[in-house]
Amino acid sequence: MAQHSVSFDTASEATTVLTGTLLTEAAQQVGVEIAQPCGGQGRCGRCLVRVTAGNVRRRSTLRLSSKDVAQGFALACQSVVESDVAIAVPPQEKVERRLSTDRTVAKVTVLAGYDYLRDQVIRRANLNLQPPSMNDQIDDWSRLQTALRKEPSLIPAGSDNSETGQLPPRLEISLPLMRGIGQILRDADWQVSAVMEVNSQQDNQPAVARLIDLHAGHVAEDEPLWAVAIDIGTTTVTTWLVDLKQGEVKTQAAEYNGQISRGEDVISRIIYASKNGGSDEMRSLILKTINALLERACKRAKCESERIMKATVAGNSTMMHLLLGLPAESIRLMPFVTTVNSPPTLRAEDVGLAIHPEATVDCLPGVASYVGADISAGVLSSGMDDNQNVNLFLDIGTNGETVLGSHDWLVTCACSAGPAFEGAGVLHGMRATRGAIEEVWINGQSYEPNFRVIGDGKPQGLCGSGLISLLAELFITGLLDKAGNFNSSLSTKRIRRGEHGLEYVIAWSEETRSGKDIVITHVDVDNLLRAKAAIYAGFTVMADNVGFPLKDVEQVLIGGAFGKYINIEKAIEIGLLPDLPWERFHFLGNTSVRGAYLALLDRKARNRIQDIAGRMTYIELSADNSFYDAFTSALFLPHTDLSRFPSVVQGLKQLET
Amino acid sequence: MAQHSVSFDTASEATTVLTGTLLTEAAQQVGVEIAQPCGGQGRCGRCLVRVTAGNVRRRSTLRLSSKDVAQGFALACQSVVESDVAIAVPPQEKVERRLSTDRTVAKVTVLAGYDYLRDQVIRRANLNLQPPSMNDQIDDWSRLQTALRKEPSLIPAGSDNSETGQLPPRLEISLPLMRGIGQILRDADWQVSAVMEVNSQQDNQPAVARLIDLHAGHVAEDEPLWAVAIDIGTTTVTTWLVDLKQGEVKTQAAEYNGQISRGEDVISRIIYASKNGGSDEMRSLILKTINALLERACKRAKCESERIMKATVAGNSTMMHLLLGLPAESIRLMPFVTTVNSPPTLRAEDVGLAIHPEATVDCLPGVASYVGADISAGVLSSGMDDNQNVNLFLDIGTNGETVLGSHDWLVTCACSAGPAFEGAGVLHGMRATRGAIEEVWINGQSYEPNFRVIGDGKPQGLCGSGLISLLAELFITGLLDKAGNFNSSLSTKRIRRGEHGLEYVIAWSEETRSGKDIVITHVDVDNLLRAKAAIYAGFTVMADNVGFPLKDVEQVLIGGAFGKYINIEKAIEIGLLPDLPWERFHFLGNTSVRGAYLALLDRKARNRIQDIAGRMTYIELSADNSFYDAFTSALFLPHTDLSRFPSVVQGLKQLET
Repeated sequence: MAQHSVSFDTASEATTVLTGTLLTEAAQQVGVEIAQPCGGQGRCGRCLVRVTAGNVRRRSTLRLSSKDVAQGFALACQSVVESDVAIAVPPQEKVERRLSTDRTVAKVTVLAGYDYLRDQVIRRANLNLQPPSMNDQIDDWSRLQTALRKEPSLIPAGSDNSETGQLPPRLEISLPLMRGIGQILRDADWQVSAVMEVNSQQDNQPAVARLIDLHAGHVAEDEPLWAVAIDIGTTTVTTWLVDLKQGEVKTQAAEYNGQISRGEDVISRIIYASKNGGSDEMRSLILKTINALLERACKRAKCESERIMKATVAGNSTMMHLLLGLPAESIRLMPFVTTVNSPPTLRAEDVGLAIHPEATVDCLPGVASYVGADISAGVLSSGMDDNQNVNLFLDIGTNGETVLGSHDWLVTCACSAGPAFEGAGVLHGMRATRGAIEEVWINGQSYEPNFRVIGDGKPQGLCGSGLISLLAELFITGLLDKAGNFNSSLSTKRIRRGEHGLEYVIAWSEETRSGKDIVITHVDVDNLLRAKAAIYAGFTVMADNVGFPLKDVEQVLIGGAFGKYINIEKAIEIGLLPDLPWERFHFLGNTSVRGAYLALLDRKARNRIQDIAGRMTYIELSADNSFYDAFTSALFLPHTDLSRFPSVVQGLKQLET
Repeated sequence: MAQHSVSFDTASEATTVLTGTLLTEAAQQVGVEIAQPCGGQGRCGRCLVRVTAGNVRRRSTLRLSSKDVAQGFALACQSVVESDVAIAVPPQEKVERRLSTDRTVAKVTVLAGYDYLRDQVIRRANLNLQPPSMNDQIDDWSRLQTALRKEPSLIPAGSDNSETGQLPPRLEISLPLMRGIGQILRDADWQVSAVMEVNSQQDNQPAVARLIDLHAGHVAEDEPLWAVAIDIGTTTVTTWLVDLKQGEVKTQAAEYNGQISRGEDVISRIIYASKNGGSDEMRSLILKTINALLERACKRAKCESERIMKATVAGNSTMMHLLLGLPAESIRLMPFVTTVNSPPTLRAEDVGLAIHPEATVDCLPGVASYVGADISAGVLSSGMDDNQNVNLFLDIGTNGETVLGSHDWLVTCACSAGPAFEGAGVLHGMRATRGAIEEVWINGQSYEPNFRVIGDGKPQGLCGSGLISLLAELFITGLLDKAGNFNSSLSTKRIRRGEHGLEYVIAWSEETRSGKDIVITHVDVDNLLRAKAAIYAGFTVMADNVGFPLKDVEQVLIGGAFGKYINIEKAIEIGLLPDLPWERFHFLGNTSVRGAYLALLDRKARNRIQDIAGRMTYIELSADNSFYDAFTSALFLPHTDLSRFPSVVQGLKQLET
């Protein structure tokens, strides 16, 4: 096959590729960043580039007009090189930070009632070994084991190991660590500090103790014993750096998931990962994100990252698979099956985390392809599994995971709401970063809007909470009817006919950052209605399934960072949330990282999360005949069955009068 | 520091090094082989090279005359580069093969009474998994576990697992294997063959089952299930390729240990390994040897090496440490301590063996720095641990390991006999390869010798059995007195004064391969007497220690390949072996590889070897006050105390008459 030179205007050097190479592949070779939010499927159009010289073959022109093609535009993920080419890459959208959890935690989190000596399985002890002599020639590892077995503080108080007062019969050590112990013991003149993970015999599991670290010299009792709780969100990755001695979160750090440029939602990422080399790339992107966060967190806490002795990881099943390099394709395809829901305990070096190479990496258990460890952790964090009364747990996002239940029973489901509430599939949708409109009010007479922008500058688009708010206001003011159609008969310039049919203008070009009007189109409204209908149908079908009336739930617990910004009133108005007294709604924030933190600290919490994952009954909505009807009924504002939303009906009546 | 070019006449390209670089290091950079049998200590003189241009600094000229230095000769391991230099490398001694165990096993070894279903912990089963569906969305790993748990043939019959009829609660799987299972299950349409290691709860160890292999499609019942027993000798490495289904050794292969060029004995190897990078080099040399042997064995047996599911490894403690990359330095230094005597079970990929990456590598347990797994395996193989009567086990070699005992008690010791019986430290000593004199007879009147040469060609030197034979004949014929001094008053040209004092000529120059006389010198005799005295003193001091009279031992069991060629009569005549009726001596051959083979096949044998290692009481001779006296008394032929050797006394009397 012929070879061609590909030059990018944003790279100093050209690269040489074979005929048929994708432009995105060529770009990668020379380190040119081209975002592929849809995972390289040619659907989102965000990888648009311009061919300024030479020829490419466009596999798909779905997102391109014939004029675009004439002007040389092409989708990098869909265009293959056919000659020497020169490519102009437009400035890539920068993800600007507005991460609520990063650096904002002046308020230190400490787990109330935490007792290191009782609750923690990561144990540290100072040891004084008897040096070997001609009368005592036992091998180093046996000598060390003898010293470890004499150390009562290595055994969690109250665990079944403490009944015998002994470590379990098998002490584990890796070969790389074994290679180092002789030198460490001698360098330290047989005075060392050891870190172990000590698991007692629980739930029919064998008791195992593993040496994680051996350090020359003794360590002060109050020296922090570092560990980290990690939540891998599809959008945001959050790390809490914890001192296991005090149970205290010393510093938090959060950052966008580096995989975003290869897919905005899990489906796009799975598609990208299923391509040749995609899985490795996805794995390295998430590791890069996590490791950079760890570096940042450690810098703030003045701790060396190799002193972190354990990581507990939560995340949805796709994120977990991509982190571990497990194939994710079967998650996307019927019948939606993961490789593993409850991964075995791993070593940091095997996973690729830049902490102590022997540190335990505990990937928390999930339930199904679309109900992952983030939800198990969320349920733990919410405490609903330990409540006599029935609660509803919601994670409003792409997958709309929902859990209903009590300490007696738990059911869960996921609905593919799609990423509309995360700003994707909506013309001027965006993530909740600077420039996003997060709340909208519309005047009922003039139909003029008012809005609040994140960062207080000019608006650039609408984030999820802004879209919910806008949808509710459009409905309440009569700009939208209950079927989601714009009322073109109202006397306002804000409603107009655009390229995609009727649309409402939220901000005129002179008010915006881009200098273009910010609008919401009929298509956008349809997408948002589908998203909210899927979520509403999800939890109602699930409740019907177990025969529990939703009106009887004690609390609606809303997890996920997104949840925090929702205006309950407006979410009820559009029929996203059930019509219950507002005081029953509680925003729990990032329940996933908090659940990981709890599991990291408390061995009983860790057992509980295993129990939660084990007893959550998963209901597959796509196999449920009633789901489609429920979904269709929920495609209206707020719902076809208005008796479900008495407060909305009453509110509308008040407006009419 | 300045850079210099170093060129070798045996390499096509020169290399560039800094001032002060050793010639051996420069040679390694360009792949020039220079043997260092003493481990680079400058003691053996075998790395002699000639500097034909430029300057080197000789750190040691111990082995060089001033004439040698004037002619440009230098020891490569002791000479550092000081300018651009050109080096002439003499032809390197080739180790010519005469390995008794390689390819000679037309006689197939099968363990009598072996029952795969009862004895074997490596289990294979064909599985028919229920494919996932929308009504059964369990994850792949759980689905596979369910299928495995339904398979009774995975549980060794009669093990405590079989009482419950269930696999242990924890099934282990590595991350790399987990990454592959989804694809394998789907490729195979959910019909697979699995290999597991299933250990039952024994000796207070937790029961663990680990998945080793998953293979698309079913395997015929009688298809071999491959595994390998490996013995890493200091000189020779032996592999037995075994079918675990039949318990049969399908092929054997043996080769010199590739580390020989970096040290002939364990001490030289430890010294070499303790140098910068030496440990990695030693590890890669032994892996290269083993992996080449495995390739050879597999080729003969028509098996793919990645189908080998387990390796059981025996070897002395130094060999085990060098294989695993563990630091060996402390083995050599007081108080002679290893990093580990009983290594944990490892994965082949972590060890570096070119078999199935997930295969279990079971390094057998040793007792002390100089009583390793080869001796535990030897005792197992000899059966002495299960015998009511007391037996003496001897491994006559550099370390002279000895075990005395019965099923009630076992004591062991090692004496640093040195490598004299392996041909080192003796002017014309050599290993038992082609050209070695292996047996000598001397005429009592003419003092003319007669000898047998390995390979029947011209002689090149003397191997261990030849040296024992020669020493005995010299003594019996009066050429040597009991103190090991040559009798110069006898009328024979064979006794003459050489560079090293008196010597005896075994072969004249015209008879030899090299065209030089083959002699044994007074210095050689002293070295041999010290070696035999150390061994004899070892087992006698040990027997005295436990108060067991040596004359009462039921059998003397001689292990090691070397043992096979010893002439018992002559070994008693020189006082190497105790004076017991000849029928009590038994040559067991390579007891180490046979012990590994037994441990590989039979889980009870594996438990027994752990028990043997645990209950052997190690006696440190260098800490025993009586050892020096015993050694000094044994420096005579056969001994100062002739009452210990009545048969020798009687034989000498008969000769006199």
